[in-house]
Parts: sequence; C-alpha cells; structure tokens
Amino acid sequence: MIKIGIIGVGTVGTSVANILKDNADVISARAGRDIVVKSGVVKNLNKDRGLDIKITDNVDDILDDDEIDIVVELMGGVDEAFVVVKKALQNGKAVVTANKALLAYHRYELQEIAQDIAFEFEASVAGGIPIICALRDGLSANHIESIVGIMNGTCNYMMTEMTNNGVSYDAILQEAQYLGYAEADPTFDVGGYDAAHKLLILASIAYGIDAKPEDILIEGIENVSSEDIAFAKEFGYAIKLLAIAKKDKNEVELRVHAALIKQDEMIAKIDGVMNGVSVVGDKVGETLYYGAGAGGDATASAVVANIIDIVRSGKSTPMLGFNRPMEGDKLTLKPSEKIESKYYLRINVNDEAGVLAKLSKLFENNSISIETMLQRPSENSSANLLISTHIAVEKNVKNLINEIERLVFVNGRPAMIRII
Amino acid sequence: MIKIGIIGVGTVGTSVANILKDNADVISARAGRDIVVKSGVVKNLNKDRGLDIKITDNVDDILDDDEIDIVVELMGGVDEAFVVVKKALQNGKAVVTANKALLAYHRYELQEIAQDIAFEFEASVAGGIPIICALRDGLSANHIESIVGIMNGTCNYMMTEMTNNGVSYDAILQEAQYLGYAEADPTFDVGGYDAAHKLLILASIAYGIDAKPEDILIEGIENVSSEDIAFAKEFGYAIKLLAIAKKDKNEVELRVHAALIKQDEMIAKIDGVMNGVSVVGDKVGETLYYGAGAGGDATASAVVANIIDIVRSGKSTPMLGFNRPMEGDKLTLKPSEKIESKYYLRINVNDEAGVLAKLSKLFENNSISIETMLQRPSENSSANLLISTHIAVEKNVKNLINEIERLVFVNGRPAMIRII
Repeated sequence: MIKIGIIGVGTVGTSVANILKDNADVISARAGRDIVVKSGVVKNLNKDRGLDIKITDNVDDILDDDEIDIVVELMGGVDEAFVVVKKALQNGKAVVTANKALLAYHRYELQEIAQDIAFEFEASVAGGIPIICALRDGLSANHIESIVGIMNGTCNYMMTEMTNNGVSYDAILQEAQYLGYAEADPTFDVGGYDAAHKLLILASIAYGIDAKPEDILIEGIENVSSEDIAFAKEFGYAIKLLAIAKKDKNEVELRVHAALIKQDEMIAKIDGVMNGVSVVGDKVGETLYYGAGAGGDATASAVVANIIDIVRSGKSTPMLGFNRPMEGDKLTLKPSEKIESKYYLRINVNDEAGVLAKLSKLFENNSISIETMLQRPSENSSANLLISTHIAVEKNVKNLINEIERLVFVNGRPAMIRII
Repeated sequence: MIKIGIIGVGTVGTSVANILKDNADVISARAGRDIVVKSGVVKNLNKDRGLDIKITDNVDDILDDDEIDIVVELMGGVDEAFVVVKKALQNGKAVVTANKALLAYHRYELQEIAQDIAFEFEASVAGGIPIICALRDGLSANHIESIVGIMNGTCNYMMTEMTNNGVSYDAILQEAQYLGYAEADPTFDVGGYDAAHKLLILASIAYGIDAKPEDILIEGIENVSSEDIAFAKEFGYAIKLLAIAKKDKNEVELRVHAALIKQDEMIAKIDGVMNGVSVVGDKVGETLYYGAGAGGDATASAVVANIIDIVRSGKSTPMLGFNRPMEGDKLTLKPSEKIESKYYLRINVNDEAGVLAKLSKLFENNSISIETMLQRPSENSSANLLISTHIAVEKNVKNLINEIERLVFVNGRPAMIRII
C-alpha cells in the first residue's frame, strides 16, 4: 500500500484524491500496488472538502510522517513551495508537483537534489496533455528544432471568441472572468507570464538551457484589437498567444507573445480553452499534442499518472531527461533584439497627404521591407494602416516603431504582432 | 558503452543506425551512456547500405553475441519474428520492435516472457508519434472511454486527395502507388488490416483486452466513391479510415472502417499522409496526438527513443502497462453485430415511381429511421439515393442492406459508411 500526502487541497488536490478513489481499479492494476491518500495540508481547516482523509494545517505532519511515500505539492508559489519540496526530498519522499512557477525558478536545483529520488511534474505544463512524457521520453532521439505552444487556455479562449464572434477585447475579458477562466487580476494569464513559466520547463528538457522568466521576451494579448483580428482573417491567419522555443545554430530563442499564424497550420486549429503544443524534431518532423490545459480533473490526471509511474518504476528517468550535461552547455539564450521574424504593424494616422511616403522612408531606413498593406478608415478622419513585413530583425522593428510614434501625423504608439 | 544489434536493416533499420550516429550528442546525454550499433542482419549481403557496422545474414550472430545488449527487431512478419524475439529475450537481451503484426498476434505471450526484461514497441503504432508513451504512461490515471485513430497514412492521403481535389478512388490509388505511399498490392493498407494491427495494440494497453485481427470488424476504403465524398462535404463531414476502440459498460468495441466524421472534430482536421490519435479518458477528457505515422526517420525516432529509455531506466514499466489483471478480466469484446452507430447508405435505383415508398417501408421494418436524404441523378436514367440514418444497430443495417439489394429497381449492392 502506497501512501500519499497532498499539500494544498484545492480544486486539483481534491480531484487527485477523488481520482485515486474513483479509478482505483485501473490505477492499482497499472501501478501494481494500491495507492491511498493518507493526509492533506490546507490553510483553512474549517472548510469541508468532502474527502475522508486526515486534514491538517501543518506541512510537517506530512513531511515528517514516515508512512507517507509520495508528497504531492499543489500549494503554488515559489519560495515556500521550494522549502517544502526540498524537505520532502531530503526526507526520502518522492515528489509530484503541478507548480510551474516553482520550476520556472528552481528546476535545476531540484534536479540536483532529486538525483536519486523521483521528482515528477507532468501537470505543470499544459495540464492533462502528457507533453513532458512526449518530449522527455517519446522524442528523446531528436534534436528539438522548435516548440510552439498554446499553453494558456484563457488567452486562447479570448482570441477564439474575438475571431469567431467579433467580440471586443474588453468584452471578452469580462466574459472570461465571469466564466471563471480569468482571474480578477488577469495579468498572469493575459500578460503571457503563465505560458512563459511552462515554456521554460519545456526548454530545459529540450535544450538543457537555463533561463528564468526575467531573461526572456514575454508579451501578452492586451493590445490585440478587432482591427488586428480583421486583418488576420483577411490574410488567412489566426491570432494566438504562443510560447516559442526555437533553436538557431548554437542559440535558443525563448519568447511568449501574440502571433499571427497561418490558418492551415495544425496549431492554428486549436480553439477555445484547449491547449496544444507542436514540437519539431530533426528526425521525427512535426508532432502535436492537444488537450485540456487546465481544470481540476485534467490536471489531476497528470498528477496521478506521475504517481503511478513512480510506484511502478521508482526513479526511472532523470528529472529533466538528461544524465550528462547536454548540448545545453553549448547552447545560449539568443538576445531578444536579435530575433528574426515577419511583423505586422497597426499604425493610426491622420488621413492627410504625404503620410505613406514618409512612413515608407522610415521602413527603408530600418532595412524593413513591406509585404502587404491595407488602409482602413478609423475614427475622427484618421485611418488605420495595417502592414505586414518580410523577415526583419527585432531591434530594427523596435527602432522603427519608436520613430513612427514620434511622427506628428501618427496617433499613439503603433501596435505590433509577430507573424510565425 | 551499450551495443545494439539490428535484425532487418532496411529503410527503418538504416535510419536507426544513422540517428544513433547523427544525434549521438543528445542521445548519450539523455541515456547517460554511449550507444553504438555493433551489427545488423540482412537477407542480401551484397547490397551496400552505407553503414559501418558488421553485416551478417545469420540472426544467431546477434542473438548469441554476449556483447549485444539490445536487439532491434525490424524484420517484419509474425512467426519467424516471434521465434527471433523470444530467443533474444531468453538470452537476456532487451528488445525493441516496430513490428505491429507480431504484436497483433503475440503481445500477451511476449508480455509473459518479458516480465523481467525490457520489451518496447513505440514504433509499432503511428510511427513517430509517441502514442504508446502517452497512453501507457501519460493517461494511466484514466479509464479510457474511446480511442479514435487515423493510423494509416496511405488511406488518409487518398481520402484527403479525393476530398480536396475531386480525384477518383482508382486515380488516387495509382498516384499513391507511384509516390510509394501504397504497395503494388495495396490490400494491407486500403483494406484496413494495417490500422487493425495498431488498434489491437492500443486496445491492450487501454483495456487489457485480448483480441486478434480475425476477431474484429475490419473494413477498408475500397468502396468510397466520389458521390460519398460529395455527400460528406455537403453535410459538413470528412471521410477517414478510422480505427476505433470504444468502451460501453463491460464491453469494448474494436473496429476499423471508413467513417464520416464532423469536420469540426480535431481528428477530422488531420489531412494527407499524417496520422493522429484521439484518446478520451474519463478524467482528462479528449487528448489528441498528431505526427508522421510512417517513413524511415520518423519510425526510427520512436525506436531510438525506446533504446534510450531502456538504457537510462532498464525494465521500468510492464510491457502493456499493467502489473495485475486489469479491468480487462471483466471487459469482453462486443460482437460487431451489436455495434450502434449512425449510418450513411448510397443506393443506386432506377428512376421510377414508388421507389421511395418501398425503400422507406424496409427502413421502418428494420427499426431504422432516416435523418437526411439526397437524390442525385446517375448514369442510364438511374439515381443515387444518399441517406443518413439516426442511431441504428449494425445487425439491422446489414439486414436492411441485404433486403434492399434484392429489390428489382435497385442496381448492385448499396454502399454503407458508418457515421461517427
């Protein structure tokens, strides 16, 4: 009999306990042992969770309990979780976590500490989709060329609704909050930070590269307007919040931002709250993984899969998938100003003579060539210029945007979306 | 240093050897050991494969070689491969195979023999897509409700081309043969047998159910006509060869056939030679896996992933994913005549009075109700009736088709495609 302690019995923790009970028949058949939850740690002892497990508000009741074999960490946050997880490992307990923030900051230290004991984290990226399993085990024969992920269901829901139903950004954000998809302060989701944490975890497995959230380019969807959606539809694109890891010789780009992506790409077909991750390996080509990226049961499905794995196999795989320094020791993070991409710009201008000539000159000065342009009337006799470029360098585009913003006939700062 | 012997050095075997060399940097980092191919068994010693490994035409040179740790079986076929693989396991060598036919017949005996030694087979289903990894490890917390797979690239290519470019079945089969997607005798692919072998493997992992190809419903795409494609497009369906496993209480349906599937389902969006597998778990909901289902490098990517896994983890997971008798001991195969589905029928009739009345009577007699009907003029003053039904029982539909075929105003046997 394997005994589990759950630290943080919220939505996911309750689902973990319920799945271990509801699906005990297949779980014990697969694990080869019976698995039960012995106790759970909560902040508020008075709330009834409908579970028949021992409840405490002291983590040490679990960490120091010799009967507990596996600790499931679902408390969230970085510093306190790190202390708790370290102590669990030091006490010889295997750990399963869904905590992406913890891993975004401490995954290499944890890999060091967990050399001889299982530490698993499938649920930390893309919820119920077994993407860690696929990337770490299933694609291990490949050099990973790129990872492109839709890993925030809130953003994907909002972008899908804006596209399909013509809703404005503000209206759909309100609806997402009403439906419980977005928090009262939605910054963590719509600002791209949640997706960035997940990207860093995948990038470690793929490239062995060490980076923290503050090292990489993170933008959100806050500036995507109905005009941009209309442009996208007209030119055969979808707009998605993408998390991208891309290898270019000895450098790896890591970035999160809204992106225009051709509608016929598989990743562009992932709509609503669903998540999807496209991985290109040098041998296997493109593979794609799709499913629910959030929700108690879907996330708990991944947590319990890790528990089963630990019970039947013990410590079987290095935490991040490599035993020796990987190509990571040769790979470095590409500075974001060196990123090359196609770009889409939305520029609001006063509708007067000579505007296009002056703008074109600035594009030329910055070595940026225009691929398509669309002019649409806007409010107060102004017009929106919707422009897509050929491949350009990020630094030049940023410079161009600054220069355009300073022009007297331009209203506000031009909006920019990268094109994948 | 881990030494590999490859039995069957064709396209995939050559790719395995090349990947182990080309990607030795990441492979040895992930496996924690260097891995080299020592020798390969071929039928024709005179053909140059451009590899610097020892080549022999005697399997025992590998099976009895104490230096060889892992045998890669790529010879194909059932009986001879079974003998070879058994001997490898008995000699204490781990085995990796891509041989779906071997597993379709002998997977349970192999699981028995390979209790203490690794036997892996990721490449046997859907080529480079790590679907075994996902189903066996990633989704292990779930009761699997259904598996719906596009697992034959040849058929999917043909269906996609017929749909997008209006090509006839015969023309596209010829083109597929010319492109090397289909064999001179295409029966194994277009008849559904290849997909059926793969389905049986997945069904064992999901349900622990034992069945052989001859036990299950296997139909191909040979009878899909341009008329059917037109009907599908008109009513918002795609036509695909699907391999389906579906749990219904204590029974499991296993079937392979052409199917009409709503265009907005993710699985319907998988086009061309690509493969995809949709798995619905009771907790995680739908997840989907997409990628190249064939080709030397994609298939070898899965073979090498298994090799890496064995090197870094040894025997870590029971071959089919369960340690104890699973719910499989309660689950039985549902007889195909009990299958319930919606159906599409194409009936060629002489264009004369009273036809519809007589046909409708037969539908009613067999308790089958019609959902949509379309009449299209055909050759020689005949007409095609294209009919879709509400949910009906397979046995009744088969009976209906027999009765319709006997009507004097009906030409030939009605064609039937199930609707998913």
